[in-house]
Amino acid sequence: MPVYKAPVRDVCFNINEVLKLEQYAALPGFDSATPDMVEAIVGEGGRFMSEVVAPLNLSGDQQGCTRLPDGTVTTPNGFKEAFAQYQEAGWGTLSTPTNFGGQGLPHAFGFVLEEFICSANQAFAMYPGLTNGAVSAIQAKASPELQAKYLPNMVSNKWLGTMNLTEPHCGTDLGLIRTRAVPIADGSYAITGTKIFISAGDHDLTENIIHLVLAKTPDAPESSKGISLFIVPKIMVNDDGSLGERNAVSCGSIEHKMGIHGNATCVMNYDGATGWLVGEENKGLAAMFIMMNAARLGVGIQGLGQAEVAYQNAVIYAQERRQGRALTGPSEPQEKADPLFVHPDIRRMLMDAKAFTEGMRALCMWGALQVDLSHKALTEEDRAAADEMISLLTPVIKGYGTDKGFDVAVNMQQVFGGHGYIVEHGMEQFVRDARIAMIYEGANGVQAMDLVGRKLAMNGGRAIQRFFALVDDQCAQAKGKHELADLAGRLEKANGELKAATMWLMQNGMANPNNAGAGAHHYMHILGIVAIGLMWLRQGQAALDGLASGSGDKAFYEAKLVTGRYYGERFTPDAGALRRKIEGGSEAMMALPVEAFATA
Amino acid sequence: MPVYKAPVRDVCFNINEVLKLEQYAALPGFDSATPDMVEAIVGEGGRFMSEVVAPLNLSGDQQGCTRLPDGTVTTPNGFKEAFAQYQEAGWGTLSTPTNFGGQGLPHAFGFVLEEFICSANQAFAMYPGLTNGAVSAIQAKASPELQAKYLPNMVSNKWLGTMNLTEPHCGTDLGLIRTRAVPIADGSYAITGTKIFISAGDHDLTENIIHLVLAKTPDAPESSKGISLFIVPKIMVNDDGSLGERNAVSCGSIEHKMGIHGNATCVMNYDGATGWLVGEENKGLAAMFIMMNAARLGVGIQGLGQAEVAYQNAVIYAQERRQGRALTGPSEPQEKADPLFVHPDIRRMLMDAKAFTEGMRALCMWGALQVDLSHKALTEEDRAAADEMISLLTPVIKGYGTDKGFDVAVNMQQVFGGHGYIVEHGMEQFVRDARIAMIYEGANGVQAMDLVGRKLAMNGGRAIQRFFALVDDQCAQAKGKHELADLAGRLEKANGELKAATMWLMQNGMANPNNAGAGAHHYMHILGIVAIGLMWLRQGQAALDGLASGSGDKAFYEAKLVTGRYYGERFTPDAGALRRKIEGGSEAMMALPVEAFATA
Repeated sequence: MPVYKAPVRDVCFNINEVLKLEQYAALPGFDSATPDMVEAIVGEGGRFMSEVVAPLNLSGDQQGCTRLPDGTVTTPNGFKEAFAQYQEAGWGTLSTPTNFGGQGLPHAFGFVLEEFICSANQAFAMYPGLTNGAVSAIQAKASPELQAKYLPNMVSNKWLGTMNLTEPHCGTDLGLIRTRAVPIADGSYAITGTKIFISAGDHDLTENIIHLVLAKTPDAPESSKGISLFIVPKIMVNDDGSLGERNAVSCGSIEHKMGIHGNATCVMNYDGATGWLVGEENKGLAAMFIMMNAARLGVGIQGLGQAEVAYQNAVIYAQERRQGRALTGPSEPQEKADPLFVHPDIRRMLMDAKAFTEGMRALCMWGALQVDLSHKALTEEDRAAADEMISLLTPVIKGYGTDKGFDVAVNMQQVFGGHGYIVEHGMEQFVRDARIAMIYEGANGVQAMDLVGRKLAMNGGRAIQRFFALVDDQCAQAKGKHELADLAGRLEKANGELKAATMWLMQNGMANPNNAGAGAHHYMHILGIVAIGLMWLRQGQAALDGLASGSGDKAFYEAKLVTGRYYGERFTPDAGALRRKIEGGSEAMMALPVEAFATA
Repeated sequence: MPVYKAPVRDVCFNINEVLKLEQYAALPGFDSATPDMVEAIVGEGGRFMSEVVAPLNLSGDQQGCTRLPDGTVTTPNGFKEAFAQYQEAGWGTLSTPTNFGGQGLPHAFGFVLEEFICSANQAFAMYPGLTNGAVSAIQAKASPELQAKYLPNMVSNKWLGTMNLTEPHCGTDLGLIRTRAVPIADGSYAITGTKIFISAGDHDLTENIIHLVLAKTPDAPESSKGISLFIVPKIMVNDDGSLGERNAVSCGSIEHKMGIHGNATCVMNYDGATGWLVGEENKGLAAMFIMMNAARLGVGIQGLGQAEVAYQNAVIYAQERRQGRALTGPSEPQEKADPLFVHPDIRRMLMDAKAFTEGMRALCMWGALQVDLSHKALTEEDRAAADEMISLLTPVIKGYGTDKGFDVAVNMQQVFGGHGYIVEHGMEQFVRDARIAMIYEGANGVQAMDLVGRKLAMNGGRAIQRFFALVDDQCAQAKGKHELADLAGRLEKANGELKAATMWLMQNGMANPNNAGAGAHHYMHILGIVAIGLMWLRQGQAALDGLASGSGDKAFYEAKLVTGRYYGERFTPDAGALRRKIEGGSEAMMALPVEAFATA
């Protein structure tokens, strides 16, 4: 059975030595982020995920969820008890706002726990996974009455939230939705329609479930300008906060999926269910996007989480499994064969995984800081800059992070050879579970278009220009230090490819938007490569500082320097190839008629 | 439910217009390869796979195989009847030698049918899939008596063959095997041991199963120099050819796998089973390699087959599913949304798939010709050249072909968005089934080492030098033709990267073999990119010839030219990035101690 151990040391390194959260102690919530506190919280959260949640991953996959004849859903054995502990300990509320009972810690803590829970058990993670996003949307847009009624129990995870967008005929193109919301005299609406792919649509973990549902009012304009957002509780909530009757919403069936079998992904039927408008009519998409942006970052973290746990198990297997001899002569001549670990191609896959996961972790944590700064920085200018940076990074963290996270899971399965294909080892589950992250919350092609079509041009390109400068500055600082010079030189080159690709897209996407579309996915990958390269330079600098301080963990810091160098050697060269692909444009890509794709 | 239509037109184009098999009519078996005959055989074979075998794919995956209490195995509903038709029609014997009842046609036919059956149903394909390789090994190495006893029924697929190498503790490192073969007075051996991951180890499709088993005789040297190969029939065969008693070999259990659920991948227990030596004692590995080389090409074709069927279904979905609008304005304003097909990122994935599958198909068919020429060419020199070329290409077809085949299947699943993750659409099955091809018959890292460590240096590097020259010649011919010039220029550049990478590996692999190991996988990919690029130039030339002839299928030829250009734009740039990664060497890759990989 696969195992999981939370990467506490690496997280603490990021928080305390790379981000140095202590320096923001003047901001609300940051004063708690002392190194001791960080270690205590992260260590305890990691222990919980490793010991309580991870052991339910393989069994949850095999058992799956069950829909009972009355339409209610039961989760795999052990999920309910584990969730009760999770909720009791407040692991989901570390970074939620204090005004409704959250702990108000920096988002880095929330992101870390999200990584841990995704590594431990992604199907389990997707029960509470959308609740914090739902809280943000309700807090930003709903009336004080609705907030008072729903938020305290949602923040505490006594109730969980869901996100109901997709219908059988539409996903990305939400303008097409058919679910109807008819106003009732008491100010509520009667919601009727079918939603599909609803993660945690029904389950037995909490006494109530709060659905956020997109629907159209009777006279709403067609297109996405006519969408409204509603709160639809599974069980009606009385004015005194007690639970009332069942609402007219139920799970019609559980989808049969490639993976995350332990999560009940439901078809939800709304049969005149009672709902309450969040914000204004026809302004639902903007409210939902508050939830979606949080969810997208969360899904990017899933890519990291699956890569990390697959990596950990591959490392163990590569040490235990003996096969063949080192190319440079037997490493353990007293044994009949050397560990897999001696083979360069095994090491290539493990180092790729290590370089990605540690770099991606640093990127997510830096992103978490931007989320906080966008709300809490002392000046409007700093808040705006942070908001723009996280807006730019969100599609990259989601799209690049999950593409690469999946690749890593596939490679870690490969380390196991034939045994990787066998269910009992658990490696194939990581691949199946990681696969969904490339699809949901906006397929990665949609992320790429969000990046190229919307985020690049925001405020005259201010965010991407600031990003270029950050990279250039970091490279300039690092080039004089011989431990970092190689990576800095390679990253500077990759940043040059990124700038050139940006310029090409700006110029040629204007003339023909298909040129932007044709290069978007590759562009997202270049930006991912450079962003993680930037994180490796920062980690490298922190490692040099650590070594200079003479304190403790010399081997850890030295490994950071080697892994950063490896990242430069093996990840940055793709930037040039991707740029050349982008410059191929859309002509050949779009030239063929439909019939040319038919097989005869 | 997914569908499959055999790509008959493209196959006939390759055989008749690219390879022009007619020009080899003087060679045995090639006289039958007239265009009419090609079309008839390929068309009928394609129809059979599409109509009889493909409809059992999804149901076979869901039902799986069953081991009965007596240790025998039943296959999914319909497999037995479909196999009876397959056997009766002789679809497995097109390219097997005539002296034991095969049809003796060029290997191109055998490869084509292998592609079709893999697209239709990979789990089904793996029942007969190893038999032809077993036939080759027996024919090359076994005594005339054993050949006479087993080959006629194996060639006709009345009996099927298996390949028993792997044991629980060893796969790649066959020197470690523990299965014992003790000689008996009658000249047979008593075989005892456990083999795992045995594809089609037991089933109900044929009355007998012929296992080829690696084992060690009592005084055999340790290491792979002490391995012998045995024929072990499931049912003993009497001297008159009738079937006798059950042999002491049986299926202990069926493995639980990520995919190819319809194939019984078995743990096989040999309890003093009676076996007969194939060739000489301790020379078993060489005999098994005859089988393995055939199997490796077959697995490469699986990569193609899964990519093709996934592509076909994605093309259909991209036309039927409407979501969003073309970036250049609505393509079908009368509808509420445009087909997915209008979106560049969807088109990118489909064009990537088309460029890979059509190019890979051409490569496999060219490889098939090399197999034939290695046996049948008129001069010893030509036979040796063909043998060297297919030896060089085998790890590329297997390793690059299955890496990319899997990537394509993943991308085609992505075209379906959320629906791609749902079992009923069948796309996730293609991904799960395609995954195994990267692992079995030598994991792709092993293929890469075979290429770099063995094939490159064969006969002083003669094969790779000849390959360079082939590419340069084709580029030189094409550069003057404006329809091909862009691809030719890009391919020439990629060939330059390949040459440089080859030189780097030669020079630096000598000094430190880890440098060769560290670059092997990337090198295999560069060679794959260039080899398929060469095929695109050849297809382009054939398309120009077709257009010049003025006959028929103008749109088909024009699509070849566009797709070839797209291949140049989007595939060849990776060659440079891969070369740069290779030149990173092994230093950082191998620098870290084991402890640096432990998560704390």
